[in-house]
Amino acid sequence: MSKQAIGVVGLAVMGRNLALNIESRGHAVSVFNRSREKTDELIAEFPERKLVPAFTLEEFVESLEKPRRILLMVKAGEPTDATIEALKPLLDKGDILIDGGNTHFTDTIRRNQELAKAGLHFIGTGVSGGEEGALKGPSIMPGGQRDAYDLVAPILTEIAAKAPADGEPCVAYMGPDGAGHYVKMVHNGIEYGDMQLIAESYAVLKQVVGLSNEELGKVYTEWNQGELDSYLIEITSKIFDKKDDETGQYLVDVILDRAAQKGTGKWTSQNALDLGAPLPLITEAVFARVLSSLKTQRVAASKVLSGPDAKPFAGDRTAFIESVRRALYFSKVISYAQGFAQLRAASDEYKWDLQYGTIAKIFRAGCIIRARFLQKITDAYAKDAQLANLLLDPYFSDIAANYQAALRDVVIEAVKAGVPVPAFSSAIAYFDAYRSERVPANLVQAQRDFFGAHTFERIDKPGSFHADWS
Amino acid sequence: MSKQAIGVVGLAVMGRNLALNIESRGHAVSVFNRSREKTDELIAEFPERKLVPAFTLEEFVESLEKPRRILLMVKAGEPTDATIEALKPLLDKGDILIDGGNTHFTDTIRRNQELAKAGLHFIGTGVSGGEEGALKGPSIMPGGQRDAYDLVAPILTEIAAKAPADGEPCVAYMGPDGAGHYVKMVHNGIEYGDMQLIAESYAVLKQVVGLSNEELGKVYTEWNQGELDSYLIEITSKIFDKKDDETGQYLVDVILDRAAQKGTGKWTSQNALDLGAPLPLITEAVFARVLSSLKTQRVAASKVLSGPDAKPFAGDRTAFIESVRRALYFSKVISYAQGFAQLRAASDEYKWDLQYGTIAKIFRAGCIIRARFLQKITDAYAKDAQLANLLLDPYFSDIAANYQAALRDVVIEAVKAGVPVPAFSSAIAYFDAYRSERVPANLVQAQRDFFGAHTFERIDKPGSFHADWS
Repeated sequence: MSKQAIGVVGLAVMGRNLALNIESRGHAVSVFNRSREKTDELIAEFPERKLVPAFTLEEFVESLEKPRRILLMVKAGEPTDATIEALKPLLDKGDILIDGGNTHFTDTIRRNQELAKAGLHFIGTGVSGGEEGALKGPSIMPGGQRDAYDLVAPILTEIAAKAPADGEPCVAYMGPDGAGHYVKMVHNGIEYGDMQLIAESYAVLKQVVGLSNEELGKVYTEWNQGELDSYLIEITSKIFDKKDDETGQYLVDVILDRAAQKGTGKWTSQNALDLGAPLPLITEAVFARVLSSLKTQRVAASKVLSGPDAKPFAGDRTAFIESVRRALYFSKVISYAQGFAQLRAASDEYKWDLQYGTIAKIFRAGCIIRARFLQKITDAYAKDAQLANLLLDPYFSDIAANYQAALRDVVIEAVKAGVPVPAFSSAIAYFDAYRSERVPANLVQAQRDFFGAHTFERIDKPGSFHADWS
Repeated sequence: MSKQAIGVVGLAVMGRNLALNIESRGHAVSVFNRSREKTDELIAEFPERKLVPAFTLEEFVESLEKPRRILLMVKAGEPTDATIEALKPLLDKGDILIDGGNTHFTDTIRRNQELAKAGLHFIGTGVSGGEEGALKGPSIMPGGQRDAYDLVAPILTEIAAKAPADGEPCVAYMGPDGAGHYVKMVHNGIEYGDMQLIAESYAVLKQVVGLSNEELGKVYTEWNQGELDSYLIEITSKIFDKKDDETGQYLVDVILDRAAQKGTGKWTSQNALDLGAPLPLITEAVFARVLSSLKTQRVAASKVLSGPDAKPFAGDRTAFIESVRRALYFSKVISYAQGFAQLRAASDEYKWDLQYGTIAKIFRAGCIIRARFLQKITDAYAKDAQLANLLLDPYFSDIAANYQAALRDVVIEAVKAGVPVPAFSSAIAYFDAYRSERVPANLVQAQRDFFGAHTFERIDKPGSFHADWS
């Protein structure tokens, strides 16, 4: 009996679609699921495909070529640990486990180390692109032992998305142990930021300028032709066209304004706080989702707390819509500057040697944040691999010079009108602080020394000093 | 030989000052330190005080009345665990360990549970007020077994600060296990927010209005007579008077603008993210400190990235200074609204039954955030113990109605001038989102359903829905 080059454990939608994707590239794939129903269903649905079912882990492991390549697509956390524990005694030295789940990178670091002791390789990989990406071509961010990665690279390269610009596959070795899952986490944090920024642009265009859904659809369609060209802007433009089958209203108006989340944005912010990497914009985006979910409180508060009187928009609509576009693009640049600075801090902290330009490159297709502008990030790191902050690259500092006035205007008009723009405001505050040779933290240090004798540094000589303030 | 009612382990500055404080209330105090030098020094410095030195833990434990009351003032983390492990075999059932260190509340929950199994009580207590507070009267936030608290309450009550308004001691039982250290953590987060808001008011007054240090000193002195009356405003006013002995310059101008931190602000933000409690303002304050610490990058960036041209202030100075005062007070209200909403979320999550009015009450003296306005918080919870958000209380909603225009003006002027005001901006964004019946999260839900089939809720009927977007 011939053996398969790879097997997939866990046949929920992501696992099953990845199995089908691999099979579509000409590989027979062993498949296993804890409950056999999912396996039976998959085989029944695709009888002609080279999917080889196994109904015990022993049988599954036995069906694989050595070194075995096993893609785990089970629930993150304890289910992943349980699956690994069950597989471990069945494996041989040099076998490779690939965790494609939504795993916290610290778990991946731990598992990579534990399994290495048993002579097993462990690749933790981010997989972005949702159900459709998994089936047709996701963006893939693998981390772990380099030589183990080389053994799975051919298959991952086949199944990955290909960048439209140059056909390059959206997969690359990210670095040791948790590097892959870390990059995926930051990808998701960036996604939270992008979505909140788009939501704020929508709120401003609707509430300040008074655009209709039809007009909004046109605006985003147009924006998608230029610098903002991206998957999220594209789907936003389509969302404004969609009518509700039941009521005939625009569907977007029927959807409840409570944003849900699955926690990866939160992880990104929590890790930024641990690293001491400033990530205010994405964090505001996470908190904006949380606040949106407090719908009952907001409804009650709307009856108690009022804002500025609504006024019809008096300015030049076309010019202001262009300002919103610029504000959105510049804020997006600031958000990515923060996200990539966090990658850099993490690379130093965890000794990963992340390649920032490569990361931007594999985001160009397959994943949710795919966008034309990612090429500009790759270009920036090609010029300076150790760039401290994207805003210092000439392309991005030009954007800053040319678009900051628009961002200031949009924040000012929104604040005047009482439209909440936490991410836009956070963007300009970060920009103004980052470009400030002097911030008012000298006062904070004076206060800390006053009440807690925490000492301060001086501008004119090195050392720690304490003043007698009384 | 007579035995002492209480003993202190750990004679660094906080431990030694608390021991002296307790002794000053008429109690003999056993004292122990891991290295005997600190003990010898203390006894040598205060030969006339009733401090009873012990040089082994056995001797120390033996010197205490039963049930023993032992105040641990050792470094948080492993040193605390090590001290507890060393003490444990020497103790008897019913003895009480009190951890007065800067401990993460999850460690306190764990220790409380572990020690309870051995029949030992464990009180985790926040102690705020720095060195001087420890010596003369701190604000004390104890959590743990209620009956154990009752046995230490008399001494804690004696050593606590007394509120100037009514002489009430600033100590109260916070709740089970980690409640005390949790409240202290949020206290510190609020302190980060207060300090950042004051720093932003300073930046606006200096950079937008052009006030000198002398004028700034007068402004804060005046503010301290009114609603803003608080320890932090008081010390701020004094900071602007202080000259550097060496250069004769104002000391505040000589202090390097890199704010340090010890992590409790970060903990507060990380826990807010875990709880799903929106805490954007304090989190912006934490990130502002982090960003300030990137001084080298900021200096480099200041040469690449420019902002708006500086313009002399053209408005009415007196009126704008009053706007800054109102912006500061209203933002402070918003920050406390967020902090107390987080306490409420934590109380639900960890089953602590926190008394929010009591918490505000014990913050009135001894601690860094002591302020006249805390009475307003106590009053609000006296009227409605389950108030969802402070902004809904009539006193605070009046502040919102009357001061929001000023906060908007200050944010607008700062954004125009290129002065970073992350906390002020975050305050108005939170206010505008919290009072919004509808926020643009409907678009976020549409996007999530579009790319990930995450489903959405509708405004017109219950249930989860998925649309065919293509």
